Amino acid sequence: MTRPQKRLRSDIAWSTADRITVHGRDLPGEILGHMNLGDMAFLGLTGRAPNEKESRLFNAIAVTLVEHGLTPSAIAARLTYLGAPEAMQAAVAAGLCGLGSVFVGSTEHVAKLLTESIGKSAQQIVAENARIPGLGHRLHKPVDPRAKRLFEVARETGYYGKYCALMEAIAKEKGITLNATGAIGAIACELGLDWRAVRGIGVMARAVGLVSHLLEEARQPIAKEIWQRSDEEASQHLRPAGS
Amino acid sequence: MTRPQKRLRSDIAWSTADRITVHGRDLPGEILGHMNLGDMAFLGLTGRAPNEKESRLFNAIAVTLVEHGLTPSAIAARLTYLGAPEAMQAAVAAGLCGLGSVFVGSTEHVAKLLTESIGKSAQQIVAENARIPGLGHRLHKPVDPRAKRLFEVARETGYYGKYCALMEAIAKEKGITLNATGAIGAIACELGLDWRAVRGIGVMARAVGLVSHLLEEARQPIAKEIWQRSDEEASQHLRPAGS
Amino acid sequence: MTRPQKRLRSDIAWSTADRITVHGRDLPGEILGHMNLGDMAFLGLTGRAPNEKESRLFNAIAVTLVEHGLTPSAIAARLTYLGAPEAMQAAVAAGLCGLGSVFVGSTEHVAKLLTESIGKSAQQIVAENARIPGLGHRLHKPVDPRAKRLFEVARETGYYGKYCALMEAIAKEKGITLNATGAIGAIACELGLDWRAVRGIGVMARAVGLVSHLLEEARQPIAKEIWQRSDEEASQHLRPAGS
Amino acid sequence: MTRPQKRLRSDIAWSTADRITVHGRDLPGEILGHMNLGDMAFLGLTGRAPNEKESRLFNAIAVTLVEHGLTPSAIAARLTYLGAPEAMQAAVAAGLCGLGSVFVGSTEHVAKLLTESIGKSAQQIVAENARIPGLGHRLHKPVDPRAKRLFEVARETGYYGKYCALMEAIAKEKGITLNATGAIGAIACELGLDWRAVRGIGVMARAVGLVSHLLEEARQPIAKEIWQRSDEEASQHLRPAGS
Repeated sequence: MTRPQKRLRSDIAWSTADRITVHGRDLPGEILGHMNLGDMAFLGLTGRAPNEKESRLFNAIAVTLVEHGLTPSAIAARLTYLGAPEAMQAAVAAGLCGLGSVFVGSTEHVAKLLTESIGKSAQQIVAENARIPGLGHRLHKPVDPRAKRLFEVARETGYYGKYCALMEAIAKEKGITLNATGAIGAIACELGLDWRAVRGIGVMARAVGLVSHLLEEARQPIAKEIWQRSDEEASQHLRPAGS
Repeated sequence: MTRPQKRLRSDIAWSTADRITVHGRDLPGEILGHMNLGDMAFLGLTGRAPNEKESRLFNAIAVTLVEHGLTPSAIAARLTYLGAPEAMQAAVAAGLCGLGSVFVGSTEHVAKLLTESIGKSAQQIVAENARIPGLGHRLHKPVDPRAKRLFEVARETGYYGKYCALMEAIAKEKGITLNATGAIGAIACELGLDWRAVRGIGVMARAVGLVSHLLEEARQPIAKEIWQRSDEEASQHLRPAGS
Repeated sequence: MTRPQKRLRSDIAWSTADRITVHGRDLPGEILGHMNLGDMAFLGLTGRAPNEKESRLFNAIAVTLVEHGLTPSAIAARLTYLGAPEAMQAAVAAGLCGLGSVFVGSTEHVAKLLTESIGKSAQQIVAENARIPGLGHRLHKPVDPRAKRLFEVARETGYYGKYCALMEAIAKEKGITLNATGAIGAIACELGLDWRAVRGIGVMARAVGLVSHLLEEARQPIAKEIWQRSDEEASQHLRPAGS
Repeated sequence: MTRPQKRLRSDIAWSTADRITVHGRDLPGEILGHMNLGDMAFLGLTGRAPNEKESRLFNAIAVTLVEHGLTPSAIAARLTYLGAPEAMQAAVAAGLCGLGSVFVGSTEHVAKLLTESIGKSAQQIVAENARIPGLGHRLHKPVDPRAKRLFEVARETGYYGKYCALMEAIAKEKGITLNATGAIGAIACELGLDWRAVRGIGVMARAVGLVSHLLEEARQPIAKEIWQRSDEEASQHLRPAGS
């Protein structure tokens, strides 16, 4: 074998007997007791600690994505826990597997669209894109109260800028409600996050939410009932009459 | 089918056109912009918002678990991303699947042991348990700087109590370094968390860390090299000489 | 760092430009077109190819585990696919995550019990074990038709031996229906499989079944309806009247 | 809530106390002891049992995908098992999560390309598609011995037809080795499988292979060594000299 080896390199963390450094900061001395979980996420996504305003705004968008009730993802996690209660981590993992193009992925699509379209007018963007992500909601209309509140926090912290304004103009142009994922995608751009990092915010936030679904499932189970009802109904047409 | 149906019930969240309530709180009005990601996790685990001191202490233990460098879990996530970069959520899920009995699970074992043993002396607990979780570290000795710092934050916030003291006494009795998972398990007890919830803190925290590993992998990849080296070396003894 | 390195070694496969060898056999020449998927699984579990009778019996137990209708695992996979149809592999993965102690794990428990108890009488085993795995079924009673058929195939192939007889004696002693997992655990012992390998048969078999659930979901979806009904009902008690 | 409910319906399986029917066939009477694991997969993918020739050919393509040595997916599964040996199903799941666009996905891309291009000439297809899947291999050249053998089995069973011929013509036109995934995609088309089902063959086959990797890991572990070496090397540049 003469394949030349490439050096393995990661800049995230290192330890010695008495030191632990994460993203260039002393973990015990500079991070623990000083940074909250959202700040730590921001540090991981950008390589730098957020200032107070960035911390407030970033935590707000992350917190928005924690909990959406009994989502497909939450039900999948609960059904998994029903079969393997000894492996809670696998139930969270099962729940995360569904955070793809249909649900949480839309924050990423918004951030990508805004990043690539900044400088264009809302009219132009609407004309050029048959489908605009971040718009519409089956329940929250004409206003998604999360989007409204997130832009409020963005204004309060001084981060309501050209991306937020463009996203609101696009929604107005289309005449469709700006939803939470639209606001989150725009704010992520204001915070300077790479659009490739944006789906990650949803994934980590949902992990937080899934744990609380599993704790509720442990004390007040519903997965077994969902399973049995579905199984009975779905195969009823196949079963002999009277069985 | 005459199986009586059980009512499905979840108390976590509900929405109408203009309202979204999570754990009994108005999401836009009482949570967004007010609570950080760790506070939201605490709310999910306990059903109540943390006060300022609980917030600082809980965030400190969660943040401790975010990043441990190139763990088996981080490498598994990176290898998964190598094969399916279009599904980042699945790479995080793959990384979480390994947070079982060997690594992150020990925080849960500590919390369970302390919960069940409180009132006994350290001597008695050591005598009764062949293996004590939360002790020992291959690198950090004689002191794990994270454990030291976490107890410091516990003292500063007024939450250093009987569980922390008992865990330190146990470590002293055994003459083995108290590691970070030992401190976290004890502090979780002080905060009144059910030991069944404790593994969940590690699972959500590690989801945060895994996202930053995947972003680094995207711009500075190492998974392919780890794979090729391992594959070449592991099967070398089987291959004909000179191949 | 002076940690001595351990050699990485795997005996499963190797390749050169014109050869591919798996478990010591030439993949194109000795495996493709000669062995079926169950035989390949047997080869992977034992390191040797099955004879014709072993092939028939092992395939029968593997096939039994492929499909159990709309299980929690199948519903979890379908809900995952709803969110990430572009990542079918992650939907199968989510479905597998729930194959733990409650469902498929029981085949492993049966094989372990029989391996460790062989030589004892059924009476003794029942007396010593408060819970016997592999017994009872909510629907199939007094006879599980799969168990009956599997023992038939075991007899036809000459593999009905002391483990099968012991498992039947235990079921008789307890007066509870011997279910499919009981028969599978016993037959796995007859085939000389390590009990640690037995859960693996269920995991691979269920992967086969989950793929067909996802194909059905793609053309005749039910996950969205399961989700919406569950979500509506579970939070109804929280929502204001009339909403 | 006045949302009209849609009926849940699955045609895969149903059971009563003494009957179990899967894909319209009596499980004990018509499947167990009669069909092997690959046949069962074919039944799940197509809704009908394969004839003898289809059985041989389909099993050959499925078996090809079981084992590719120490792949990223196999290493990810082993690293997961290192942390959670009590949850083998989650380790298999972690391994499957990486079967995305880069590796196993190419069989699907081949089947899709051939399905959509049949009737066109190889020249035209090459001209119209900048990237052709199913061609090239870093090790197996000028011939991939699996592709050669699979087409041989296709000829022996009478299923070498227009899709196989077209794929070979495309490879010739491009002057690149036809690899195993190219042959599998073409044969899947000959067998009348929907291209959407093709990735599923790889997913189920790899589940079979991953179980044998985990059994080897249990008795001859390498994951810990891969982890420690990677971790040491990757952060060496960050650590103070002499540590």
